Amino acid sequence: MSTARSPLMPLDQALQTLLAQIEPLPGSQEVATFDADGRVLARDVVSSLQVPAFDNSSMDGYAVRSADIAQVGDQLQVTQRIPAGHHGQALQPGQAARIFTGAPVPAGADAIVMQEQAEVVSDEVQPWVRFMVKPEAGQWIRQSGEDIRQGETALRRGQKLGPAELGLAASLGLAHLQVMPRPRVALFSTGDELVMPGDVPPDQMPAGSIYNSNRFFLRALLHRFGCEVSDLGIVADRRDATVAALKTAADHHDLILTSGGVSVGEEDHVKPAVQSLGALALWQIGMKPGKPFAYGHINRATTPGAAHFVGLPGNPVSSYMTFLLLVRPLILKLQGVDQLTPPCLKLPAHFELPKADKRREFLRARRNAQGGLDLFPNQSSGVLTSVVWGDGVVDNPAGQTIARGDLVDFWPFSEWLA
Amino acid sequence: MSTARSPLMPLDQALQTLLAQIEPLPGSQEVATFDADGRVLARDVVSSLQVPAFDNSSMDGYAVRSADIAQVGDQLQVTQRIPAGHHGQALQPGQAARIFTGAPVPAGADAIVMQEQAEVVSDEVQPWVRFMVKPEAGQWIRQSGEDIRQGETALRRGQKLGPAELGLAASLGLAHLQVMPRPRVALFSTGDELVMPGDVPPDQMPAGSIYNSNRFFLRALLHRFGCEVSDLGIVADRRDATVAALKTAADHHDLILTSGGVSVGEEDHVKPAVQSLGALALWQIGMKPGKPFAYGHINRATTPGAAHFVGLPGNPVSSYMTFLLLVRPLILKLQGVDQLTPPCLKLPAHFELPKADKRREFLRARRNAQGGLDLFPNQSSGVLTSVVWGDGVVDNPAGQTIARGDLVDFWPFSEWLA
Repeated sequence: MSTARSPLMPLDQALQTLLAQIEPLPGSQEVATFDADGRVLARDVVSSLQVPAFDNSSMDGYAVRSADIAQVGDQLQVTQRIPAGHHGQALQPGQAARIFTGAPVPAGADAIVMQEQAEVVSDEVQPWVRFMVKPEAGQWIRQSGEDIRQGETALRRGQKLGPAELGLAASLGLAHLQVMPRPRVALFSTGDELVMPGDVPPDQMPAGSIYNSNRFFLRALLHRFGCEVSDLGIVADRRDATVAALKTAADHHDLILTSGGVSVGEEDHVKPAVQSLGALALWQIGMKPGKPFAYGHINRATTPGAAHFVGLPGNPVSSYMTFLLLVRPLILKLQGVDQLTPPCLKLPAHFELPKADKRREFLRARRNAQGGLDLFPNQSSGVLTSVVWGDGVVDNPAGQTIARGDLVDFWPFSEWLA
Repeated sequence: MSTARSPLMPLDQALQTLLAQIEPLPGSQEVATFDADGRVLARDVVSSLQVPAFDNSSMDGYAVRSADIAQVGDQLQVTQRIPAGHHGQALQPGQAARIFTGAPVPAGADAIVMQEQAEVVSDEVQPWVRFMVKPEAGQWIRQSGEDIRQGETALRRGQKLGPAELGLAASLGLAHLQVMPRPRVALFSTGDELVMPGDVPPDQMPAGSIYNSNRFFLRALLHRFGCEVSDLGIVADRRDATVAALKTAADHHDLILTSGGVSVGEEDHVKPAVQSLGALALWQIGMKPGKPFAYGHINRATTPGAAHFVGLPGNPVSSYMTFLLLVRPLILKLQGVDQLTPPCLKLPAHFELPKADKRREFLRARRNAQGGLDLFPNQSSGVLTSVVWGDGVVDNPAGQTIARGDLVDFWPFSEWLA
């Protein structure tokens, strides 16, 4: 009954091994650009036009031929008026055009003088204007194509779309975009001790029971990463129930995600269930929190292929951290995202870690007003408050103590969730 | 017709003036904890229980009285078995209990020995187990209340809810939460030159027309900040149409947001329209991109009070940046969020800025693999590509040149959007 201590697998090796199994999902779907926030582009977006399409004024003022204003105080007659959205006439020598932001620069003009630097000196229908500056050719003109040239690749396949990307696509005239399918994820939890909030009030909880918190943050995280989530709820700690749940889920999902039931204890029914339906590898990953992790696949009964299976540890913080470090890149790769690693910061520790762990440790910390990092006092893997309090984690190598002032690697949660 | 150059208002002063006008929205609403991601708490969450509720094992192994194991190699008889979710009997001296992760520690036991450090030495129903360690009292036991104590404030009013916060609320047994109302925002754009993507194909765009890109990113940004958005589309550059649109919008919205029509040019119909319905201040903010900005209010016809009005500049990058720097905090304050300023980073410039602007400048940049910042070559306010390419902005003081290697202030977009 004794289990030999297996050597720990380094986290980077676990991630590499995991990602080697993942292919981007086949196919793509067309969505309205308005609805594409958070989606991933399935094809390069090549511009069929110049942005801006025409030279235009970036100021309210006067379009002039710069050579016509030899010195400060020179005057020109305003022969036309060009609001945004309207097209002017070619500008003849000696003429100026009243022009507004975004309006096309008329032929012949090569500069804009902003209205704050011009003064109307007559009251005619075509007034004379005196210029308080000698304009330089090209000033306050946005050149056609200065943002994007016709034929240029403006957005790339595998790029995650955010507000700015949607704006850029719209500026190219694209009302629809081809995006990657959403990963379909079946989520379930195992454990007889788990009770759903709302089912039993706190003062009537049976002895030994706890509320299922993992399901709440895992579901929210999956949604944030663009997944369609089927929440299968809590599956009873019985082999037959687990096999039935997994079998059904595999047919209609790309990933089956569970928390709990992946440690070496004999009370887990998930492992034999997955093994009977496909294959499963149990890893002991050299990370804290989050050592036990299961990766495998479940063969589909009705269609070819298999669904990926990931079993996260049941401790809330272990579950949260293994999601960010392993499931997040898995889901992004399913969507064809190439950029999987967010930026890491080097920040000074405003705390001490006199006793280092044998595993690579992800310590919940937050940035303080002095630009340093404070540590949450209780780093237990059961204390979800540490993740709420912290705004990221210190990535501390195995066996490494930390002295106050040491520069440490810090991963902000905001970058992982972006 | 000449406009006197008004002095620029510092950005910090503009923000302060703006926020002084904003009160959190009245009332609150109850939502399922499952649906509360991104919402803001309307009330403190005080825990009605201990988390964890009982001392429990953080390992699969054996619950023991630590005093019973005087030295490595001592043996105890296993008299019971406690899976998670089940309650054991009090442990008598000389006894051990087989125990699994999450299971309640039986009365009398004060330590857990992990199963990797124990060996079953007999084959009986109640086997004897030899321990390869001398356990310390308290080891591998998660104490009742070590995460949250009964009566403790676990989450605070004004706190933005993310995946971890939902998990924490669930661990307290909360299936529903009281959250702040979503700000109702009416969005419209002005400008005869604006064409909606899809309405006219790129090769048939009338001369002087451009696609409306601001509407796409503003809508996505508003959604990201939890707003209910009514998209009123493009309002024609006519006074009567603008007045009508604003009047209707004010009755049913907390904020009316437009882009375009707030510069000093005479072609704008938004300003007189807002002035006729309420009040409007036109600011020239000392920031680049993004100088012109309008803040005011529109009195409601059918209900008491007024809707806030914000007019953003029409240039895409100016519009994007003024949204992040001014509208984002406004919307967060409407929701009662107290933490309005995200963390700023100090990073080395891997570029030069030999010629500084007279205004405080937000330069689109991105972090490179060496931990420094690269600058997007074209910083024109019309070039939305700069925001797509960049992963944040350098916040450069007015008149400040930058030499390669200088430490500069950098705001990652991810923190603003978190």
